[in-house]
Amino acid sequence: MQLRVRHLDVVPDADILEFVREAPADRDTMDRMLSRLLESMNPGVCRDITCDLIDQRRKAFLTWPAATKNHHNYVGGLAWHTLSMAKAADALLPLYPFLDRDLLMAGILLHDLGKTEELSAPMLAEYTSEGNLVGHISMTAGWIDEAAVRTGHAGEEDKEQRMLLKHMVLSHHGKLEFGSPVMPMIPEAEMLSLVDDLDARMFMMKQSMDATAPGHFGPRVFALDNRMIYRPTQFGEQASAAADNGKEKRNDGGTQA
Amino acid sequence: MQLRVRHLDVVPDADILEFVREAPADRDTMDRMLSRLLESMNPGVCRDITCDLIDQRRKAFLTWPAATKNHHNYVGGLAWHTLSMAKAADALLPLYPFLDRDLLMAGILLHDLGKTEELSAPMLAEYTSEGNLVGHISMTAGWIDEAAVRTGHAGEEDKEQRMLLKHMVLSHHGKLEFGSPVMPMIPEAEMLSLVDDLDARMFMMKQSMDATAPGHFGPRVFALDNRMIYRPTQFGEQASAAADNGKEKRNDGGTQA
Amino acid sequence: MQLRVRHLDVVPDADILEFVREAPADRDTMDRMLSRLLESMNPGVCRDITCDLIDQRRKAFLTWPAATKNHHNYVGGLAWHTLSMAKAADALLPLYPFLDRDLLMAGILLHDLGKTEELSAPMLAEYTSEGNLVGHISMTAGWIDEAAVRTGHAGEEDKEQRMLLKHMVLSHHGKLEFGSPVMPMIPEAEMLSLVDDLDARMFMMKQSMDATAPGHFGPRVFALDNRMIYRPTQFGEQASAAADNGKEKRNDGGTQA
Amino acid sequence: MQLRVRHLDVVPDADILEFVREAPADRDTMDRMLSRLLESMNPGVCRDITCDLIDQRRKAFLTWPAATKNHHNYVGGLAWHTLSMAKAADALLPLYPFLDRDLLMAGILLHDLGKTEELSAPMLAEYTSEGNLVGHISMTAGWIDEAAVRTGHAGEEDKEQRMLLKHMVLSHHGKLEFGSPVMPMIPEAEMLSLVDDLDARMFMMKQSMDATAPGHFGPRVFALDNRMIYRPTQFGEQASAAADNGKEKRNDGGTQA
Amino acid sequence: MQLRVRHLDVVPDADILEFVREAPADRDTMDRMLSRLLESMNPGVCRDITCDLIDQRRKAFLTWPAATKNHHNYVGGLAWHTLSMAKAADALLPLYPFLDRDLLMAGILLHDLGKTEELSAPMLAEYTSEGNLVGHISMTAGWIDEAAVRTGHAGEEDKEQRMLLKHMVLSHHGKLEFGSPVMPMIPEAEMLSLVDDLDARMFMMKQSMDATAPGHFGPRVFALDNRMIYRPTQFGEQASAAADNGKEKRNDGGTQA
Amino acid sequence: MQLRVRHLDVVPDADILEFVREAPADRDTMDRMLSRLLESMNPGVCRDITCDLIDQRRKAFLTWPAATKNHHNYVGGLAWHTLSMAKAADALLPLYPFLDRDLLMAGILLHDLGKTEELSAPMLAEYTSEGNLVGHISMTAGWIDEAAVRTGHAGEEDKEQRMLLKHMVLSHHGKLEFGSPVMPMIPEAEMLSLVDDLDARMFMMKQSMDATAPGHFGPRVFALDNRMIYRPTQFGEQASAAADNGKEKRNDGGTQA
Repeated sequence: MQLRVRHLDVVPDADILEFVREAPADRDTMDRMLSRLLESMNPGVCRDITCDLIDQRRKAFLTWPAATKNHHNYVGGLAWHTLSMAKAADALLPLYPFLDRDLLMAGILLHDLGKTEELSAPMLAEYTSEGNLVGHISMTAGWIDEAAVRTGHAGEEDKEQRMLLKHMVLSHHGKLEFGSPVMPMIPEAEMLSLVDDLDARMFMMKQSMDATAPGHFGPRVFALDNRMIYRPTQFGEQASAAADNGKEKRNDGGTQA
Repeated sequence: MQLRVRHLDVVPDADILEFVREAPADRDTMDRMLSRLLESMNPGVCRDITCDLIDQRRKAFLTWPAATKNHHNYVGGLAWHTLSMAKAADALLPLYPFLDRDLLMAGILLHDLGKTEELSAPMLAEYTSEGNLVGHISMTAGWIDEAAVRTGHAGEEDKEQRMLLKHMVLSHHGKLEFGSPVMPMIPEAEMLSLVDDLDARMFMMKQSMDATAPGHFGPRVFALDNRMIYRPTQFGEQASAAADNGKEKRNDGGTQA
Repeated sequence: MQLRVRHLDVVPDADILEFVREAPADRDTMDRMLSRLLESMNPGVCRDITCDLIDQRRKAFLTWPAATKNHHNYVGGLAWHTLSMAKAADALLPLYPFLDRDLLMAGILLHDLGKTEELSAPMLAEYTSEGNLVGHISMTAGWIDEAAVRTGHAGEEDKEQRMLLKHMVLSHHGKLEFGSPVMPMIPEAEMLSLVDDLDARMFMMKQSMDATAPGHFGPRVFALDNRMIYRPTQFGEQASAAADNGKEKRNDGGTQA
Repeated sequence: MQLRVRHLDVVPDADILEFVREAPADRDTMDRMLSRLLESMNPGVCRDITCDLIDQRRKAFLTWPAATKNHHNYVGGLAWHTLSMAKAADALLPLYPFLDRDLLMAGILLHDLGKTEELSAPMLAEYTSEGNLVGHISMTAGWIDEAAVRTGHAGEEDKEQRMLLKHMVLSHHGKLEFGSPVMPMIPEAEMLSLVDDLDARMFMMKQSMDATAPGHFGPRVFALDNRMIYRPTQFGEQASAAADNGKEKRNDGGTQA
Repeated sequence: MQLRVRHLDVVPDADILEFVREAPADRDTMDRMLSRLLESMNPGVCRDITCDLIDQRRKAFLTWPAATKNHHNYVGGLAWHTLSMAKAADALLPLYPFLDRDLLMAGILLHDLGKTEELSAPMLAEYTSEGNLVGHISMTAGWIDEAAVRTGHAGEEDKEQRMLLKHMVLSHHGKLEFGSPVMPMIPEAEMLSLVDDLDARMFMMKQSMDATAPGHFGPRVFALDNRMIYRPTQFGEQASAAADNGKEKRNDGGTQA
Repeated sequence: MQLRVRHLDVVPDADILEFVREAPADRDTMDRMLSRLLESMNPGVCRDITCDLIDQRRKAFLTWPAATKNHHNYVGGLAWHTLSMAKAADALLPLYPFLDRDLLMAGILLHDLGKTEELSAPMLAEYTSEGNLVGHISMTAGWIDEAAVRTGHAGEEDKEQRMLLKHMVLSHHGKLEFGSPVMPMIPEAEMLSLVDDLDARMFMMKQSMDATAPGHFGPRVFALDNRMIYRPTQFGEQASAAADNGKEKRNDGGTQA
């Protein structure tokens, strides 16, 4: 396909960020959500290290994408994906009360923080040399030790907490062949890996369905194991209608005591 | 090891069910939870077929195990696992409002119903011939068509709903090599597969940790990709303490608006 | 490559079916072969269910292709491939007399019958939504139970026959990763899977050789594990000559009694 | 388990071969079948090389097992398995008349001939050093060139026939990971590989069923991808009855013209 | 097998280290080799960080095993394996002069240093909790950043060197499925991975042959992809004889200019 | 991209070989290196067979490429790659003195000799029919037996040497899925496989870096498991400088006694 441009206008004083695709929430909103989430954690090793590292790169965390393509590949995508995972985790925690919420939330907040160095910019992101040669998983694991020194948690008594936090980050891709040097060996790490998958796949499936006519399949999606996604005939309308009609209230009478 | 039995007492009037391992909730409680869940679904194809099939084998559904070993391998395990998955789904639905709750709940309730034929009994279960040669996935998919006839949903106007419901059941193992003849191609099917994994793995990890001393690893668990699970030093006490101290209230100030 | 069309004639009264690629035998001939094959089965569950299902969709069975591409992808391909497999099975049965011919023939006749719903049309076939979301294997397995009801074989005494017939259909892809939810566990199912492979591969190899010059390799064939097929220098002439010169008679003096 | 032997008799003049498990046909019978098969081949490179190599080790060919375990692991197993494959090939050839029978029969007769060097003896066979370090596939391929010299077929005009015959032997395990250095690239090689699999698997399935009660599954069989084999309730009786009652005659009215 | 101990002597003043299996060179010798190797590196980031980290845990480096089983699983095995790899690298460097020797030697010296924390002790070593949950690869990568701070190489101008050194350590298992989070992407990293494999496999093969009679195969070795190793009939004697008779001098006239 | 050629000159008396890419050493030099290497081997089976086979196709050995693409894909590439491997082996032999140098050198010299029949020509090479259907591995293994006859080593007393030499050639791809019918089972075969990989990968990495700007990654290389290769900022200059400044002398003080 060829386009012939016959005329071009320059828009004076335009800010390019007004034209790019962004996360569903604006930066200030996500900033407040982030603060509230950090405050909700119990004082201790997990919260201190997480706050230290987030504060060091808060602006990048709020503007970076979560990936160059595949999912949440827009300005603010990293923060939105991370905050969605935190919501999912909080929704599931009452079902599995033996999980340590502080460890899980610290793992969720830090798991992809290294992407701010692995990818080059909030827009049109590319992999940096360090992103390819070291990778965001190992970068973040290294930062945890640095933050432990800064926050006074480098001692022997905090060794297990540091070790578990590093384990959360290192194992979050779930399998060795996906780039995690260790598999999840505590339930918090398994939960982190699963809600990461869940949120990324729901994003990709929704995105495919939005571009597909009802009753048809979208194109094969490489990051979804090459699957095609089907958009049911009644998708969208029905769901919206149900949402408007108090469907969620009915939920309360369902599985929630 | 050899044991020499020197004396045996007969316990008169004993019911063997009093001595076996059971689900955390008793059968009546699970029965009520099940009824409430079915009532919470919108009227239509999904609810009618699900109610029909559950009612046909309600007693077995409430007493069967979810597996012969691995996870929820106790009396009532199938119902408990299913109800836990429904709770997890309801917890996650607000995050992904484009999902069709009725389809998802129908899929969850039916996905392992075929186990009541695949396994031989509520206790000391073995695989039946049909369980090996046909499998619970294909059995349940077949029942859906039978139930559609019984409930008056065998017509052309309900074809897509029947097809999607069968797809939920057929794809719930997530991958072909795990015995699903098709991969999940709608987000409800992906969600079903993920909460199934989540609940089964949390069960197996918790079970391993309960049998492991703090600061140690349990034995390799085949159904967890041969992983060993680590029990942190503070596991249990800390979690309990946190739960007692209003930790969950603090959650509300975290990710939940 | 560009073609410039300078002139077009309309052929009046032309039937498009006269111009498409078709099976080596015409529809009437295949219809008679099919009838004779069904009659050759012993009376019982296998024959009754097979006759019922074939009769329900006999026209589609005789005109549908066996696949959208790869092998027997022409009008009548499904029937031709199925009848070839039946011939192969009858040729091999004397060698393995412990096989149940009725079960094997029923499995062969039904194994791909679901393709008449999985694919959209006898020509220019595409996968239907049900073809993708349910698949021909699970569709056909479901039909067997329906046919059992219609033919009076839904009772307990015929349960094993129904179960084995479903097993034949479900396992015919041979491996889980090829979309069969169970592997073949009876020799009839293994035989079905092998003659299916045999007939499809012989077709694809012959097709490649027909388009290749003697002494050369054809292009890589994806459905043959990406192999290139070699056409020997003497291929064709020699084989024809041998066939003309009573080669087959000589066979009789060879391995046949 | 412990056995206490109280009494032992020596059987004078006993030949151990009278007590061991043997092929269904005796050595003389198989010798005659082999001769007839070789005579049935057209004169030429394939027959000359095959006759040369078989004659060199005819006694071993008639007494060796086909494997140390798994299938045809008895005295005469190699010849019986080979002759069965030849029968299967002759049964299938009329369906695929473009196949070169001489090449196919030569490949079948030679494919496992190297086992006579790979395995140490007709009974209680072990792998020889050469069997492990070189393997029967490469051994036999090498012998073909030697036989070509002896039979006057080492010239340029017979190069393609030698090459194809070696290809038959080299590719007969079907896949690289099964030890074939090349995959089958001509239909004769594919057919060889498939009838080899077919005959070996029918043997193993029959063997498992013979040791299993009707209505039950046998133990997992490693060489059958760890499958359990099911013995149907009516297996054996029914099949025998059918065979007695002219079932095969009915076949003629089925697929055979 | 049962042993009945009839008499036990206590050996007074015995040092257990005198009875355990040790590296071919004693600790002082290896210590000197290590010093000389460090001195041979050019001054700079690589040498400074390597010296810093080795000095921090020099005693452990000289006494730890390289693994709990498989290869170099004796007191001093880690140092011996590392020094052998350095020798192999120096032998190969003249062939590939574009390789950076300092980076390669630093990578070799550090690649398994984390084993001193991953394994619990020089003898009867077990995996520590950190060894399982974090792993020696990620531990060592983290230490490099700490050493960079201590040696004044934490600045921007040394960033590439630090990054490459971490890449060496992270990628040295060669493949993701072997626990490296990234694959080797510079030739020095590929060389490190290959000489690591080479030295480990030569050890395991030699060890198997030492326990095998000439002309026989040893048992299957899991860490060698389950291979059996063959000991040639002339192995040992011939090799020794050749070594005595100036075989190596003849080498010089061979490939070495 | 389109090029428009406006003018063409014919170069009279030009030899096309002057314009093609060639090995770093000219043919005469490689010929002398080859002679010296053969002379360095001890008299015996290995040397006699190797000399016989090399002499039979010496010209092709000195001009053929090592592959059609990937590595050493230029005139003389086969000899250059082979001679580099021999140098690498000689460099490593002092570290592993239990290796039989004659067997190793024979294996190296012969391992890819079959490429002179597998590929069609020194330039613009394509796979021959025999190259695809038989492959260079099996071709060379067959030639060893022929050479044994010619050199008087076909007797029983040389059987083990012949067998081991064939094993070297057959196993040199290291794994079944790479086309070796057996895995290396002696350390010489493992060493051959490793130095083959080493030399090929160093070639491909160097080639990629030569075409890449410092501080950047090259394109994905299929034969390097799809990796991108990074060219460090200081690559080239630094290495050259180090080489000029007696870096290698410093080596001697390092690992070499």
